[in-house]
Amino acid sequence: MPPESRNRAILERLRQVVDYAYEKAPFYRRKWDDAGFHPSQLKTLEDFETRVPVITKQDLRAAQEETPPFGDYLCIPEEEVHHIHGTSGTTGNPTAFAVSRSDWDSIANAHARVMWGMGLRPGDMVFIASVFSLYMGSWGTLIGSERLGAVSFPFGAGAPGMSARAVHWLKRMKPAAFYGTPSYALYLDEVARDEGLDPREFELRIMFFSGEPGASIPAIRDKIREAYGARVIDSGTMAEISPWMNAAGSHESKSMLLWQDIVYTEVCDPKTFCRVPFGERGTPVYTHLERTSQPMIRLLSGDLTLWEEGPSSCGRSYPCLPQGIFGRIDDAFTIRGENVYPSEIDAVLSGMEDYGGEHRIIITREGAMDELLVQVEGKKKVYEKEEVPEFHRKAESQLQQMLGIRT
Amino acid sequence: MPPESRNRAILERLRQVVDYAYEKAPFYRRKWDDAGFHPSQLKTLEDFETRVPVITKQDLRAAQEETPPFGDYLCIPEEEVHHIHGTSGTTGNPTAFAVSRSDWDSIANAHARVMWGMGLRPGDMVFIASVFSLYMGSWGTLIGSERLGAVSFPFGAGAPGMSARAVHWLKRMKPAAFYGTPSYALYLDEVARDEGLDPREFELRIMFFSGEPGASIPAIRDKIREAYGARVIDSGTMAEISPWMNAAGSHESKSMLLWQDIVYTEVCDPKTFCRVPFGERGTPVYTHLERTSQPMIRLLSGDLTLWEEGPSSCGRSYPCLPQGIFGRIDDAFTIRGENVYPSEIDAVLSGMEDYGGEHRIIITREGAMDELLVQVEGKKKVYEKEEVPEFHRKAESQLQQMLGIRT
Repeated sequence: MPPESRNRAILERLRQVVDYAYEKAPFYRRKWDDAGFHPSQLKTLEDFETRVPVITKQDLRAAQEETPPFGDYLCIPEEEVHHIHGTSGTTGNPTAFAVSRSDWDSIANAHARVMWGMGLRPGDMVFIASVFSLYMGSWGTLIGSERLGAVSFPFGAGAPGMSARAVHWLKRMKPAAFYGTPSYALYLDEVARDEGLDPREFELRIMFFSGEPGASIPAIRDKIREAYGARVIDSGTMAEISPWMNAAGSHESKSMLLWQDIVYTEVCDPKTFCRVPFGERGTPVYTHLERTSQPMIRLLSGDLTLWEEGPSSCGRSYPCLPQGIFGRIDDAFTIRGENVYPSEIDAVLSGMEDYGGEHRIIITREGAMDELLVQVEGKKKVYEKEEVPEFHRKAESQLQQMLGIRT
Repeated sequence: MPPESRNRAILERLRQVVDYAYEKAPFYRRKWDDAGFHPSQLKTLEDFETRVPVITKQDLRAAQEETPPFGDYLCIPEEEVHHIHGTSGTTGNPTAFAVSRSDWDSIANAHARVMWGMGLRPGDMVFIASVFSLYMGSWGTLIGSERLGAVSFPFGAGAPGMSARAVHWLKRMKPAAFYGTPSYALYLDEVARDEGLDPREFELRIMFFSGEPGASIPAIRDKIREAYGARVIDSGTMAEISPWMNAAGSHESKSMLLWQDIVYTEVCDPKTFCRVPFGERGTPVYTHLERTSQPMIRLLSGDLTLWEEGPSSCGRSYPCLPQGIFGRIDDAFTIRGENVYPSEIDAVLSGMEDYGGEHRIIITREGAMDELLVQVEGKKKVYEKEEVPEFHRKAESQLQQMLGIRT
C-alpha cells in the first residue's frame, strides 16, 4: 500500500480512537482539556502530531493510583476484562494491563500478520522460552502463534531447572522457531553445551526476540546466529502498546519495520515531541489503532531509535528502524544543541576491534560551551605495539561520524 | 439427566471414539488386536468395561520412544497440533501431549462447565498461581476461565520472587477465585504474613485446587479455609486426561463429582480392572469422550479413590468421590483378600486427635495368613496420662472401620 493511502486510512482510524477515548476515558478528557485539544480539531495527521499531548508511563501509574486498579483510562467495565497482565514493577508500583476480549483477538491478528512477515507459516512449531506471568512478551507471541495456525509450544522460563529441560525438549521436538530474549538465547547456548548438546542440533530456522535491544546489535545477532545456525529477527516496542510486535524485522529485512496500520508510530524529538524527518534519531511515540480497553494515544516510549523511509528491502512500504531500538533518552545529554546518548557512544566503541571494554564520558562546561570528553581504553596490544595515536584517531573519527559533533 | 439416559449417550460416544481410534491409531489397533477386541464387538457399556484392555502411562511413554515425538496414538497430522505440553519427567523420559485446536476448545468448554458448577460466573476474576509451562493444570484452568467469560489473571508461579509479588497483586486486585496447589496456597499464606498481609484481605470467594490430594483432606482443607476465609474446592485427575477437571467439587458439594459425560470414569479393582460397586475403593480408569488428537481409552490412573452413587448434595446425578483421590495403588498390599493402602492408614491416623505423627506398618506371613501390624506413636500426653490402652482402642477401632479387617 502506498504510504499516502495508508495515511488516509490511519487518519480515519485515529479520529475514531480519539473520539472514543474522549468519551470513555476521563484520563484523556482531562489531559486534552488541559492542553486545549478537542477531538473536533483533528482534521489532518499533522493536527494529531502537534495538538495531542504525549502521555507517559508515569501518567499511567499515577492514574492507577488515583483510580485503582486499572486507572481512569480503562474504557470498558471491569467485568469485561479478558486478561490481566502488567509490568513487573522493578521501579515503583507495577502497572496493570486490562485487555478486553476483542483487543486480545486483535493483538493475536496483528502478531500473526507480523510473524507471517518473519517467515513463519501454519504448522511451524514455535517454542516460547520466556516466562508466562505479567510479561506481555510471552503471551503476545503465544496468541500470535495460535492465530497463525502454528504449533505452539509455550515452554516458559524462569523456574529453577527449566533451562536444562528446555534444551532437551528443543532437541527432541526440533521446532521451526524460537522466541525469547537475546540474553536468554545466549544463556541456553551455554546450558546446551553443559548438557552435552550443540544448539545446531535443534535445527531452528527462525529465532525472534524482544525485551532487549540485542537482536539488532550486530555483535549479539552474529553470536546467536553462529551458535544456533538460525535467522535472527528483532521485534518489540512496549508492553503497554501490545500488539507490541508493531516494530519487527521481516524475513527479508534486517531492519525493524514500523507496521503503521497496527500502531501509528512517530519518531519524535525528545524535547518537543514533534516528528523528526526520516534519517534522524528520536524517541518513538505510539498510538493504538485497534485497542478499545486501555487505548494508548501518543504514549512516549523514552526509547531511542533512528528511522528511515520505506520501502525496506522486503518491499514493504513501512518506515524502518535499521539499527532497531537501541537506547534510552533518559540519560541523554545535549552538547552544542545535539542530543548525545551514552548508548550510542557505547555502540560505536563496542564495534571497534581494538576497544578494551571500558570508557568514561566527561562533560564539562567552561563559559557557555559544554565540552564532551570520551576517555577510551584500548586492548593491551594497542599499548604494547605503540598504536595509541592510530587507535585514538579511529575512535575520534567513528564517534564524530555517529554523533555529528567534534570529539 | 437420569444416569440411564446419560449412559445411553455415553455408549454412543464410546462407539465413535473406539471406531476412530482403531482407524487412526496403530497404538490402539495393535493393543486391541492382541487382546482380541474389535470395535464391532462394542454393543453395551459392559462390553466396553470388560473387553477393552486398559493402557498405562508406561505404554504411552514406550509408544513415544518408538514413534517420536508424539507416539502412534496421535490421530492427527503433526502440523495440526495446536498446543504442546507434557509431563515434567521426574521419572524417566517426559511424555509429550499434542492437543488439536478442536480438542483445546472442547477442554475449554468442559472446564467452563465445571467451573460454573464450582460457583464461578462471567466477570469473576480468576487468579491462576501455578507455573505456565508443560503443566496442564495452569493451561486447563486458564482456557476454562477464558471460555466462562471470567477475568483471567494468569499470574503463574515458580520463578524467584514471584510469590512475594503474588500476594501484593492478590491484595490489590481482590480476585473472586484462586487456583493452584494446596501446598502452594499454604506457602502463600506464610509469604503474605512475611509481607505484612493477612490473606483474608484478598477477599477470595472460591479457591480451587489440583495437582495434589490436599483439598479433599479435611485437615488441609480446613487450614486453607481458615487462612483465607474462602470456600475450598478440590479438582483434577490426570494431565493426560485433560479436560482433567472431569472430577471436581461443586459449589454445594464437598465430594468431587465425576462428570461422566466429559470423561467416562470407571473405578476399578486394581488387579482385574473391572468396575467395583458403588461404595467400594478402587483405581480410576478414564476414557475421553471428546478428544480427537491423543484420545485416552481406558487409561489406568493407578490412583486410589472410593466412589458413591449420585446424586450428590448439589443434585447432580453424577457418581461422586466423597474423599477425593487420596492415594496410589502402587504401594498397596493385600491382606486376606483385601487391598490395603498405606495412604488410607495414614489418613485414619492423621485424623486422630492424639496421633503423635509417626507410625510403622509391618506385614508378616506365618503359614498361609498374612498379618498386618500397625505400630502407632501417640502424643506425649497419651503416655504421661497413662491413656495408652484407650489410645490403642481408638486406633484399632478406626483402622478396622476403614479397612474392614481385624487390626
